[in-house]
Amino acid sequence: MKTCWIALYVLAGTCAAQTATERSIPARTIPTPATVSPELQKAIAPAWQGSTAAPKLTNEEWKARAKQFEDGGTQMVEGMKKKFSVTVTEQKIGGVRVYDVKPDTIAEANRRRLLVHVHGGAYVFSGGEAAASEAVLMAHHGQIEVISVDYRMPPDFPFPAALDDSLAVWKEVVKSHDPKNVGLFGTSAGGGLTLATVIKLKELKAPLPGALMAGTPWADLTKTGDTYYTNEFVDNVLGSNDGFLDSAARLYAGTHDLKEPLLSPIYGDLSGFPPTILISGTRDLFLSNTVRVHQKLLQSGNRAELLVFEGESHAQYEIAVDAPESGAAFREVAQFFDRNLGK
Amino acid sequence: MKTCWIALYVLAGTCAAQTATERSIPARTIPTPATVSPELQKAIAPAWQGSTAAPKLTNEEWKARAKQFEDGGTQMVEGMKKKFSVTVTEQKIGGVRVYDVKPDTIAEANRRRLLVHVHGGAYVFSGGEAAASEAVLMAHHGQIEVISVDYRMPPDFPFPAALDDSLAVWKEVVKSHDPKNVGLFGTSAGGGLTLATVIKLKELKAPLPGALMAGTPWADLTKTGDTYYTNEFVDNVLGSNDGFLDSAARLYAGTHDLKEPLLSPIYGDLSGFPPTILISGTRDLFLSNTVRVHQKLLQSGNRAELLVFEGESHAQYEIAVDAPESGAAFREVAQFFDRNLGK
Repeated sequence: MKTCWIALYVLAGTCAAQTATERSIPARTIPTPATVSPELQKAIAPAWQGSTAAPKLTNEEWKARAKQFEDGGTQMVEGMKKKFSVTVTEQKIGGVRVYDVKPDTIAEANRRRLLVHVHGGAYVFSGGEAAASEAVLMAHHGQIEVISVDYRMPPDFPFPAALDDSLAVWKEVVKSHDPKNVGLFGTSAGGGLTLATVIKLKELKAPLPGALMAGTPWADLTKTGDTYYTNEFVDNVLGSNDGFLDSAARLYAGTHDLKEPLLSPIYGDLSGFPPTILISGTRDLFLSNTVRVHQKLLQSGNRAELLVFEGESHAQYEIAVDAPESGAAFREVAQFFDRNLGK
Repeated sequence: MKTCWIALYVLAGTCAAQTATERSIPARTIPTPATVSPELQKAIAPAWQGSTAAPKLTNEEWKARAKQFEDGGTQMVEGMKKKFSVTVTEQKIGGVRVYDVKPDTIAEANRRRLLVHVHGGAYVFSGGEAAASEAVLMAHHGQIEVISVDYRMPPDFPFPAALDDSLAVWKEVVKSHDPKNVGLFGTSAGGGLTLATVIKLKELKAPLPGALMAGTPWADLTKTGDTYYTNEFVDNVLGSNDGFLDSAARLYAGTHDLKEPLLSPIYGDLSGFPPTILISGTRDLFLSNTVRVHQKLLQSGNRAELLVFEGESHAQYEIAVDAPESGAAFREVAQFFDRNLGK
């Protein structure tokens, strides 16, 4: 090692002569990190249970799976309402079904603020009241009202239905709120949709949110980025892009190219964005999606902040809801919104 | 995968029943990412050339290796002076040898500012003019004067000699500069030493720097942290903690416990720190060191920012000096110092 390291320091590029298009990494064991809470260790310990084979589902089978998710998610959100002391009220805004999530206490500074939330689930799952689970965590830890958008999804409603619904809610919300007081956020597909919504609002010359949170955003649907490979099978939530994720991307995109910026916002013009905070984890398959967006936002002249959580796979800050790291993540996001939203 | 994912979402912990203390990750190939510049691809492509066997060197052999590094580094810095249009002048400050690095143009806002730099090299290498290589990049990209500390190193001068030298230079520098106008920074061992210096200054109730940069800091010398395992052999600069790094840590620590906060600052009291920016990469063996410090700083009530570069192994932003990503990193650090230092 020292020989190569000396070369790197001394000649800053001698090793580069040994270029290769790919490298072999040996099999190894990775311990559950002792550097995270016991609650988070429980989420990190299990191996990924998925498959890299394409699921090859019919439209009816996709809908049946989505229904399973929706039912399970609704049950989960029912439990979370009590645990996190929030109310969740179904409404329609701009013709779109939403869930209005209110914490038991709204912070004084947040009285005239609002957050709009777009959920994750690979654009195919987690509709219905399940949509609101992350909104519950944000409302509780941030002491702020959140509107969670239950956007339409494929197979019946592929792209751009989700984006149209996000835009419809946004346009309605800013009729009654100063857009500078309203934040937009989401995780995974919701992180990608957050970015896509702002790209579209810019195109429409519509008012932009005061600040954004894009959690481990699905910013590139084409399996492009380093950690799609380095964290493959290390991430125990997504596991691999091959199989479910790739199929979900294609189901969502329909006839559109996966590289269109409203599908893969890393390819969009990110100049003139609101201040944005991004979240990932050291094992996240989407760590590269996250850091590529962070750097592109900074290099496009924006203010952007990054949080990376020790040991976490994709979106575990919103999955391991009882881990203190989850509370820390949402409180840090809340502080970010507090620093950047108008009052 | 979906089965487990549904369980994760629905029961938020069903998978946790399958707890294990470690997981097996299969062998695989990782491509050189197409998402970075061609210059950076050349640095990322080669496999790690090191060994996980302890080097077992005599003191004389350690010194001979250090001399090789110093000679090679001096040669490298000679070339960098011209390329990056800086002058490098050897001086003594507080009895310690330093290199005063001046760019051809100092930005107007930086006229009364100064940065103090402590170099990397695992506390055992990169002394002499080699110490100044990162300082050259910072001075050039930031248009600011930098004093690089050529601190004493083992085997002749183990801990706390490096810390004593860093403190001696700091105490002398703040006699002629408002400490709020002076930043402190370093990478790897230099990142750890940056943090340790501030912990010690707090203990001494001495004035603190106005802002810090701790690049991929060696914040934990005990191989504790997730990416010591998940990025083992993925990182092509450090490769593994086993072998050289572990031996260097023990040589530096001497009779001291590796967990002492002035050796492993993650275990220190990080409250009351100046604003701090941290840097890492998606393949960095020290990504966990970096994000653990970031979170601990935030949760101790400080302002702290994080940059993570796509595809980079340990410290490649200061190794691949010709990659545009290197310039981007140092410019982002310069902007951070500009936002946080007094004038």
